[in-house]
Amino acid sequence: MNKKYKVKFFPFESTVSVSSGTSILDAAKKANLPLKATCGAKGTCGDCVIRVLSGTYQSKHSAALSEELIRQGYALACQTEVNDNLTIQLPQFQELSIKIVSGSEFFEEHKNNISGIYEINPVVKSISLRVPPPTLEDSYSDLKRLEREFRKKLSTEDLNCEYSVLRKLAHVVREEKGEITIVVFRSGQSWTIIDVKEAKAAKNIYGLACDIGTTTVVLYLVELTSGKILSTASSYNQQLKCGEDIISRINYAQKPDRLQELHNLIVMTVNNLIDKATRSAKISTADIYSASVSGNTTMIHLFLNLEPRYIREEPYVPTFNQVPIILSRDLGLKMNYEGRIYCGPAVGSYVGSDITAGLLCTPLVRDSKKISLFIDAGTNGELVVGNSDWLMTCACSAGPAFEGSGTKCGMPATEGAIEQLIIENNGELEYKVINGSKPKGLCGSGLVDLLAELFIHGYIDRHGKFNVEKAKDRLVEDETGIGFLIEKGNNSYWGKDLIITEKDISNLIRTKGAVFSACSLLLKNAGLTFDKIDAFYIAGGFGQHLNIENSIRIGLLPDLERNKFHYIGNSSLLGAYLILLSDKNREMVNEISKKMTYIELNTEPSYMNEYTGALFLPHTEMELFPSVKQILNS
Amino acid sequence: MNKKYKVKFFPFESTVSVSSGTSILDAAKKANLPLKATCGAKGTCGDCVIRVLSGTYQSKHSAALSEELIRQGYALACQTEVNDNLTIQLPQFQELSIKIVSGSEFFEEHKNNISGIYEINPVVKSISLRVPPPTLEDSYSDLKRLEREFRKKLSTEDLNCEYSVLRKLAHVVREEKGEITIVVFRSGQSWTIIDVKEAKAAKNIYGLACDIGTTTVVLYLVELTSGKILSTASSYNQQLKCGEDIISRINYAQKPDRLQELHNLIVMTVNNLIDKATRSAKISTADIYSASVSGNTTMIHLFLNLEPRYIREEPYVPTFNQVPIILSRDLGLKMNYEGRIYCGPAVGSYVGSDITAGLLCTPLVRDSKKISLFIDAGTNGELVVGNSDWLMTCACSAGPAFEGSGTKCGMPATEGAIEQLIIENNGELEYKVINGSKPKGLCGSGLVDLLAELFIHGYIDRHGKFNVEKAKDRLVEDETGIGFLIEKGNNSYWGKDLIITEKDISNLIRTKGAVFSACSLLLKNAGLTFDKIDAFYIAGGFGQHLNIENSIRIGLLPDLERNKFHYIGNSSLLGAYLILLSDKNREMVNEISKKMTYIELNTEPSYMNEYTGALFLPHTEMELFPSVKQILNS
Repeated sequence: MNKKYKVKFFPFESTVSVSSGTSILDAAKKANLPLKATCGAKGTCGDCVIRVLSGTYQSKHSAALSEELIRQGYALACQTEVNDNLTIQLPQFQELSIKIVSGSEFFEEHKNNISGIYEINPVVKSISLRVPPPTLEDSYSDLKRLEREFRKKLSTEDLNCEYSVLRKLAHVVREEKGEITIVVFRSGQSWTIIDVKEAKAAKNIYGLACDIGTTTVVLYLVELTSGKILSTASSYNQQLKCGEDIISRINYAQKPDRLQELHNLIVMTVNNLIDKATRSAKISTADIYSASVSGNTTMIHLFLNLEPRYIREEPYVPTFNQVPIILSRDLGLKMNYEGRIYCGPAVGSYVGSDITAGLLCTPLVRDSKKISLFIDAGTNGELVVGNSDWLMTCACSAGPAFEGSGTKCGMPATEGAIEQLIIENNGELEYKVINGSKPKGLCGSGLVDLLAELFIHGYIDRHGKFNVEKAKDRLVEDETGIGFLIEKGNNSYWGKDLIITEKDISNLIRTKGAVFSACSLLLKNAGLTFDKIDAFYIAGGFGQHLNIENSIRIGLLPDLERNKFHYIGNSSLLGAYLILLSDKNREMVNEISKKMTYIELNTEPSYMNEYTGALFLPHTEMELFPSVKQILNS
Repeated sequence: MNKKYKVKFFPFESTVSVSSGTSILDAAKKANLPLKATCGAKGTCGDCVIRVLSGTYQSKHSAALSEELIRQGYALACQTEVNDNLTIQLPQFQELSIKIVSGSEFFEEHKNNISGIYEINPVVKSISLRVPPPTLEDSYSDLKRLEREFRKKLSTEDLNCEYSVLRKLAHVVREEKGEITIVVFRSGQSWTIIDVKEAKAAKNIYGLACDIGTTTVVLYLVELTSGKILSTASSYNQQLKCGEDIISRINYAQKPDRLQELHNLIVMTVNNLIDKATRSAKISTADIYSASVSGNTTMIHLFLNLEPRYIREEPYVPTFNQVPIILSRDLGLKMNYEGRIYCGPAVGSYVGSDITAGLLCTPLVRDSKKISLFIDAGTNGELVVGNSDWLMTCACSAGPAFEGSGTKCGMPATEGAIEQLIIENNGELEYKVINGSKPKGLCGSGLVDLLAELFIHGYIDRHGKFNVEKAKDRLVEDETGIGFLIEKGNNSYWGKDLIITEKDISNLIRTKGAVFSACSLLLKNAGLTFDKIDAFYIAGGFGQHLNIENSIRIGLLPDLERNKFHYIGNSSLLGAYLILLSDKNREMVNEISKKMTYIELNTEPSYMNEYTGALFLPHTEMELFPSVKQILNS
């Protein structure tokens, strides 16, 4: 029994050593991975399904897994002992398949929102120079001759040079008759030479735009001179294994060495994406000189290896909101040794640079006449209201219910997720699955559709409870309780009935209630009502396939005219990209952040009233949702 | 014979592994150490004397070493085999004993020269602040609250913060009710926070002034707030083992990894001095935030790990003259992680920051009426002529004859060196030995005295050849040839006759000739003659006990009125110290360097003529030395 084996879990690349006979579920717990078995490791719920990629294993039989899945290498972690070195994939964290957007497509898609601010004038530039070799007559030092030639092209008083450049300068300026390429970094009126290369070396220089989300991380590799997006890469944030949301990450960081671990995990995540993106574009990481990063305040603190605990302790004050330029080598990022990293400005502990960068992509901050609402609804929801003259913002802890966690049938928006759903009048369900396979579960937009359809067709009441009479044909029971049958086991990917329980529905209602009450309270603080809102911008992955009608029916979104809603995608990433390309945009986002007044909902006395009112479908006050009232009455 | 032993040589701390039976001389050669045996390892010259500090050994008998020295552990390296692990001291590189100067003494000694520029306003400052803890009402980020409090004390727009400071900020501002000490670095109008500490932590901050010489390195540890010199440390430059002069170091650096080796050796040398100085002052190296370093251009290139080869290749153009601020961690210096290093400006390959910093310490650069000459005569001699309006400079390769190398009887100005010498009319020699022991040899000032006395008393003629008739009673012969007896073996430290040969004299004449002809040519380039010189400043260790009269008699110095000569000591170190304490001085030294016109003697057609003329005592043109002519004629 004392023999030890190694178990490696993908996609986290965590390896643990366990004694022979340990269950894979216990090995996963030892590796601190988010693998659970709702049934208490009895082999009945099927939650802890894993896929064995290499190594021999023997599982106990379980009805929760079809023969076909077993043939494909799936097994239940609680029913499988480790008796060999194993490589294991956690299927719920499979590779994200995010749409690759080319530069021109991307531009086309967003041109209305970013018109006037899409300019290519990055702070890092590559400049070709000829530095004449020294002679007895022209015997200025290498550095001084270089500076002289630079000033012929670009007049500046304040010109500096990095030590790493000095170290190779003598050789480089004496090759190829002094034909060189220098890379310079501008900060205000001051220029710093950060690289010097022979002219024959690669002239193109590259930058990264990166959105660090609590769950997913997305990165653009950008050619700095043209602004062209050469490649895109995305993956889960490897910190997921240390906790699914911000609060659990901050708590995790409180033990010794854990902050460093979280920091290493996000750096590893970003470095893997850089590897993917540079391999795909066939460029060297040494040619990446700058990065523009956005993310919520906690993610940026962890990315920079900074103590996050004060973010969650009253009065919720982080180390910084505006970050100085950081050197890539201080973080260990795979970029040029002198790479410069800019993290966008945060407004407070719960409104980060993902929001300020996101606002940059909306007409909201460039129009003083219209009043707009901006929402980024992920695990944490952030809201902004205002125009180019004033901005108010707040945050709410929505929970991960629409992100695939916290409900039994939920999953991220990856292959196998139901993203759209209708209940026909005859009670039949029609749905659309991402990549068209058998359904594994429902992603956020699918859950919204399901909830709305259940409500509108009367399968659930305004409290989210089943109308047993109406729903009786679709109600089934498994070990977790009674649920509404979405798809039978023989038609589902995992071979088990796909159901939604009252508990799941209750979770979804709490989430939508948190978002709506925050929205409502923010408007009250601004002295506004919903009818004063001219535009409503929805950011984030969740919004991508969101059915606006259904969102209003369940009371997630307010009952505005439908054409006021605009989905603006991953505006955090888009904002980071705009900032990467233009110093003017960097200044603008700083201005935006300074203009934003943060409202702390946790200390707002009327918050609980607002929240409780929103725990109904669509709301206790039906008057707020006239269009829904009309449907229900019809 | 195949058994291997380790031999460690001090003070270089080089260890080599050699087969048993290898001579210590060969082991030293393997370690690349400057240990020679003039007699060809026959055990007769005594040059390769070493001292065994630990390990057992057996030497062949040699008449070149007295019984007393053998008892003290001395042995001839060529006559001793390695048959054990040995620790060996090279006596000619014993610890330097440089006078420790306290702050007040130092100031007293130099107050005339530095009056008006001794100000204490360093670029690194420590500032006490109170950053009120965050509240719901004052919920600015830690960084922003810190910046706000800083601006109450010191108004500035351009305030930056280092990443390393961000990393500890959250904790520090929440201790001791926000009472903190910050350390800031100023560059022009821009301030950077480079450290943050709790108020109870040490408030004092320190800096280093360092003169990196080709042979010796000297360092002051300075309290930045008061300007007080807390301790002084000095040692040989450990690069000595790679070559004694600049050219041999540059050549040494041309093989792979050798530049890195030289860099490591000088960093190790400086770090050892920092260790000594901080131990003596009982402070932590982490409280050292800035350093001001001066040295010749080659030394600074090697200190910064920069390719030095172009310094010695026509057109003699170095990588830089004005160096950007370097971070201590990039060099591996034992200072605070954010320590800033400033290297003074050079004028060219052969006129370095030791000279520009040195000029800062003379009234020369602050007076437009008088014309002065400045000379730093070491292995390389550098000369400057001019006033506050204009400056011309040149360099000459004087050779190490006056520094103790290149002559059989020469040695550095350490214990046992004859530093003053007179030949009485009866032919007896009177001399003064450093620390009063039996003489080991003569240092530079002793050699000047000896040469002058031999010449004035007629023991040598104007070519430096012995007047055999006059000198016959003092001429003795050993394996290197005929020499003038300075002290008999029974009265000398090494137990052998101390003599000076014609070859030694010839070396000394070539050295003084190089210096004088450079001086003469520099004045011609400036359109001046010696009688226009109002003051003559002599810098460097060599000048310390130099007898001006004797220097003129041998034609090393021009025949000016004696009160025009001023010895200004290690002005390179003093200049570095002044720069450390004041940004204004840093700007001033930059201005000085820009004003200096460099004359390249190597390409000057009349140089050989000038030089040949100076190879006589005192010179071919006796008219240039009227006072010497008068003595000879009297």
